Amino acid sequence: MYDLNEDTITDAVLARFAETPDRRLKLLVQALVRHLHGFVRETEPTFEEWRVAIDFLTRTGQMCSDVRQEFILLSDVLGVSMLVDAINHRQPEGATETTVLGPFHVVGAPQPAHGADISAGLPGEKLLVEGTVVAASGEPVSGAVVEVWSADQDGFYDVQRSDLDGSALRATFRADQAGRFHFWTLMPAHYPIPADGPVGDLLGATARHPYRPAHVHFMISAAGHEQLVTHIFAEGSPYLDSDAVFGVKSSLIQPFEPKPPGATPDGRVLDQPWRHLVRRFGLKAAGTSKLAKAS
Amino acid sequence: MYDLNEDTITDAVLARFAETPDRRLKLLVQALVRHLHGFVRETEPTFEEWRVAIDFLTRTGQMCSDVRQEFILLSDVLGVSMLVDAINHRQPEGATETTVLGPFHVVGAPQPAHGADISAGLPGEKLLVEGTVVAASGEPVSGAVVEVWSADQDGFYDVQRSDLDGSALRATFRADQAGRFHFWTLMPAHYPIPADGPVGDLLGATARHPYRPAHVHFMISAAGHEQLVTHIFAEGSPYLDSDAVFGVKSSLIQPFEPKPPGATPDGRVLDQPWRHLVRRFGLKAAGTSKLAKAS
Repeated sequence: MYDLNEDTITDAVLARFAETPDRRLKLLVQALVRHLHGFVRETEPTFEEWRVAIDFLTRTGQMCSDVRQEFILLSDVLGVSMLVDAINHRQPEGATETTVLGPFHVVGAPQPAHGADISAGLPGEKLLVEGTVVAASGEPVSGAVVEVWSADQDGFYDVQRSDLDGSALRATFRADQAGRFHFWTLMPAHYPIPADGPVGDLLGATARHPYRPAHVHFMISAAGHEQLVTHIFAEGSPYLDSDAVFGVKSSLIQPFEPKPPGATPDGRVLDQPWRHLVRRFGLKAAGTSKLAKAS
Repeated sequence: MYDLNEDTITDAVLARFAETPDRRLKLLVQALVRHLHGFVRETEPTFEEWRVAIDFLTRTGQMCSDVRQEFILLSDVLGVSMLVDAINHRQPEGATETTVLGPFHVVGAPQPAHGADISAGLPGEKLLVEGTVVAASGEPVSGAVVEVWSADQDGFYDVQRSDLDGSALRATFRADQAGRFHFWTLMPAHYPIPADGPVGDLLGATARHPYRPAHVHFMISAAGHEQLVTHIFAEGSPYLDSDAVFGVKSSLIQPFEPKPPGATPDGRVLDQPWRHLVRRFGLKAAGTSKLAKAS
């Protein structure tokens, strides 16, 4: 196999992957080669453009850390994350719709008691979240593991703040017998995705804004059900119609109801106005979203 | 722009890049989105497969260092580097053919005198390289900058050996008035590309061997000419017909002539057999390879 040229190299590379033992991996890698070569053949990058691309990918990998996932961010701003999400959730009836995971999920968040205030002393408008987890049948899912995380009033997640020691606005709860959980956090702000890395450079160079509308993340897991990864977006937030990561679905937008100072449903008395988010989360039975074509 | 689904998201993402000021960047990024979404739409990756891909890219970036470029290696084993090379060198007549840069080029190699031995005391069969740099007209290119690098008898580059202090088998020469340069190095071995990173994992999982046939790298730069990036491959080396990075061209294969002990052309007397590589390198005038379609 000498002297490959632009007309013959793609078939030669595909042939080289022909002995891949795993059928699914073979399909994925051969499709990757075809689409990647198709991109190169169509755009005819110069050697210098190729070098810039190599450098961009390298910097993207090197920007990743325990608390920053720049490749997820890249996948998000290119709409790939939401496309994968859409393909994997084709039958949303009766279940809460899904959206991107985002780069700020942290494994092993604290597990405070129901009703806890997870704002760790940060300033902002108090937000009471009351949720219920139900199955497709409508029955409550007791014991569901509910991970929540959100940005503060300045639009930062805890892992982005060097002035914070532990975690904040982030927790893991276990739904009770009736599938319920509740906690106090802060009203999140809309915010720019981190723009100090390669993905920020890309947005800048393409005249795209980096903003996401205000939202709270939920990741809910329960045996016998598909894991639900979603957000609830605050009605009225800026950027609902131009989310930098294409993640907004109208079924996920709802009022974070403004409430006057005074008594709260869980027996507190607040001297400031607060917000109230009440939401039901519908899980799908495991296997419901089986892909049509994946082997 | 709410409620994007797998049928609508690609157009929405393309529209978001519509205001990119640089025309070429806009073309590149929109083509990337189309091809990337095409890949996802065809293969329908599960969420877990997407996570594995994110992790693979992250590890690839984090494997990169001053002396290791894992994304170039990935580009190489997917045939992308040679495709970019082919597209950028469509009229090779009269000039030496090109091949991949590879991940082991180092900027700022030592500049020994002509005739120097650059093997830094490493064991192996001595190799005398005598080169001449000429223009398309056949005229010698005096003062051309010639960078050379190659693997040792064990198949390792200097930057891969922790037991080496400085560089070895790597140098920069300046061609003389007659376009000539010569130096002593070692006969390179065929070798596996570095297999201890994500690219090695990919080759392993796809039952591909990681070997490249024996070769010496040349990168030749001269004012008024296109930079030449190429190798000369040793005739008879294993893996000439299955180079892991698809880089072999028959015009670049030639004998590294075995010679008996005794006098050498540059006046040395060797008590061991040695090898002799004599090669003429043809440069193209700058601009000759202009791309057909690139703006």
